[in-house]
Amino acid sequence: MSSLGASTSRFPTTIYADRIARAGALARDAGLDGLLITPGPDLRYLLGSRAESFERLTCLVIPANGDTASVVVPRLELASLTESAASELGLTIRDWVDGVDPYALVSGLLPSPARTAVTDAMPALHLIPLSEALGALPVLATGVLRELRMVKDQAEIDALRRAGQAIDRVHARMGEFLKVGRTEAEVAADITAAILAEGHTEAAFVIVGSGPHGADPHHEVSERVVESGDVVVIDIGGPVEPGYNSDSTRTYSMGEPDPGVAAKFAVLEEAQAAAVDLVRPGVTAEAVDAAARDLLAAQGLAEVFVHRTGHGIGLSVHEEPYIVSGNAIELAEGMAFSVEPGIYFRGEWGARIEDIVIVTADGCEPVNTRPHGLTVLPG
Amino acid sequence: MSSLGASTSRFPTTIYADRIARAGALARDAGLDGLLITPGPDLRYLLGSRAESFERLTCLVIPANGDTASVVVPRLELASLTESAASELGLTIRDWVDGVDPYALVSGLLPSPARTAVTDAMPALHLIPLSEALGALPVLATGVLRELRMVKDQAEIDALRRAGQAIDRVHARMGEFLKVGRTEAEVAADITAAILAEGHTEAAFVIVGSGPHGADPHHEVSERVVESGDVVVIDIGGPVEPGYNSDSTRTYSMGEPDPGVAAKFAVLEEAQAAAVDLVRPGVTAEAVDAAARDLLAAQGLAEVFVHRTGHGIGLSVHEEPYIVSGNAIELAEGMAFSVEPGIYFRGEWGARIEDIVIVTADGCEPVNTRPHGLTVLPG
Repeated sequence: MSSLGASTSRFPTTIYADRIARAGALARDAGLDGLLITPGPDLRYLLGSRAESFERLTCLVIPANGDTASVVVPRLELASLTESAASELGLTIRDWVDGVDPYALVSGLLPSPARTAVTDAMPALHLIPLSEALGALPVLATGVLRELRMVKDQAEIDALRRAGQAIDRVHARMGEFLKVGRTEAEVAADITAAILAEGHTEAAFVIVGSGPHGADPHHEVSERVVESGDVVVIDIGGPVEPGYNSDSTRTYSMGEPDPGVAAKFAVLEEAQAAAVDLVRPGVTAEAVDAAARDLLAAQGLAEVFVHRTGHGIGLSVHEEPYIVSGNAIELAEGMAFSVEPGIYFRGEWGARIEDIVIVTADGCEPVNTRPHGLTVLPG
Repeated sequence: MSSLGASTSRFPTTIYADRIARAGALARDAGLDGLLITPGPDLRYLLGSRAESFERLTCLVIPANGDTASVVVPRLELASLTESAASELGLTIRDWVDGVDPYALVSGLLPSPARTAVTDAMPALHLIPLSEALGALPVLATGVLRELRMVKDQAEIDALRRAGQAIDRVHARMGEFLKVGRTEAEVAADITAAILAEGHTEAAFVIVGSGPHGADPHHEVSERVVESGDVVVIDIGGPVEPGYNSDSTRTYSMGEPDPGVAAKFAVLEEAQAAAVDLVRPGVTAEAVDAAARDLLAAQGLAEVFVHRTGHGIGLSVHEEPYIVSGNAIELAEGMAFSVEPGIYFRGEWGARIEDIVIVTADGCEPVNTRPHGLTVLPG
């Protein structure tokens, strides 16, 4: 909730000027009249604004013809723009008060009818009246912004590295939090505090999946007490300034693991490494997924790897590119995503290993460097 | 993040059965084929589900013809439904895996083309492909669900009372947190902890507007140090189980206030009381707004009351009915909303008084009962 200086809450203004110009050009190339961006990760990407979406419309309007972009904003929420790059960029601010139709303000900035693309975060509350004011249903801006947002620039890569180091420091302290006899919720509360203490602005997610709970990839936290012999999946992360996320999973064993568990985990570790090893420009997203999946399948573990291998990450925890079967997109230098195969034995145990990697000129750089093996804690 | 038993995380199943049946009937009366509800307050209202919206579609489909409702849900996120009433209600669960088109699953449950209404929280990410699958742009479900959600039942009223009592306990402790020499951020951190300690599941918002910052109604928190003589606006709230929000503002004075400040504050206190006094079934929302506004105007304070008088509250902090000029809706027993006039002197100081009130058969019940005057703390 605190106000932070521009130095940490966003990048230098020139970065946003460049992004808005490129987004407008891509919109023109796509045959659109403009882009309409309400609060969310796209607005943070294009304007450095962390405004939130409420019942009153805030919308960045980027005309595809190269005209200056505008921000339509409720007068009461003008302060939400002060941290953003809007004023330094010289954008036109169209503030409005109750009684004014903000959708008409937006459509007045574009031809009629207007062919527009909207941020995927725009709520129906705004999208439906906007469609009526524009005279046409917009398309998703995902296609236009994908090229921009998927490939991280140096400032974004630095932020993702800082995020990775911060979450690694939390995993390094796991022995302080994860102990036999404590509930998952107690462990999670300590991890949440550590995520904040190690430099995140928020603990966006804390998964503590102990014993059989580890077999549910989307389990969060419960009152279950961690027992001796448990395998425990810890999947944690959150944003560091200016908004870039960490996301790293390690699996722990409360005491020495059963040999059967250790053998299966060794296959998972190999699979995760094989997928990371394959990452380089020109390789497809689905090939990276297959690298992990094929290796698990060869050991009879195909059926227990029930999700995709990874997801892009940046201002959103989940964004493109998705590392999944059927996604033939070719990786490019600067893309950042998770590589996180897992194995899940219903009612028994589960395990997952997750690093965020950044594609380099000839391979990739994992931003997470904690040991990948089953970390044994006191049983 | 913790898993809570059904006893606290939602109401008894019969309540949701009734709500879904009434929502379907209202949709039929509105000439629709069905309602489409993705995660958010409407899904929590209809199903007791606190699922969140991700890139994979989760959608409650309520056919207007009385057929059993269905939930379309990613197989990976099936667990997100376990706390909801979905299984006890016997809803049809249509889980899907990557590779399946979930929008076709939804449209397959309805006539083609289908006239539907969607929750206002549905993101464009889902609304645009759903529109294509349905063959028609949906309308907002706000109109259909308004009648249901605006009028609170006894269980909801009880929850709002508990929320009000919880936030009152935080205001009662304000002298522990709000002290000369501390920053707004330090004060806010303590208030956040107290909001949780007093029974909220989250501190949804904490506004500490000291001195000139109090003159910005949307100021949150800064590094400004609270000084002797400051007037300080404290506007705080958050949800209590099962999801109903508190929201209460009181204004504090660090030391005895200047007589000019005290005189203006006395007018504000009168205005807030006048608006509350007018609340009863049959009175319009705009009349309640006018009651506060006219009284301030009579004392020359019209220009400094820069926002509406209030907003509905429940599972959302802001929902219908809005207590604003132009809203001719008649109040009805069971409606719950804030009454929160404020006065703002740019660069100098501001003040606001806010209670949540519930409309009764012949008046209203404020759920906040802390003293309304300027509370003097040590200067």
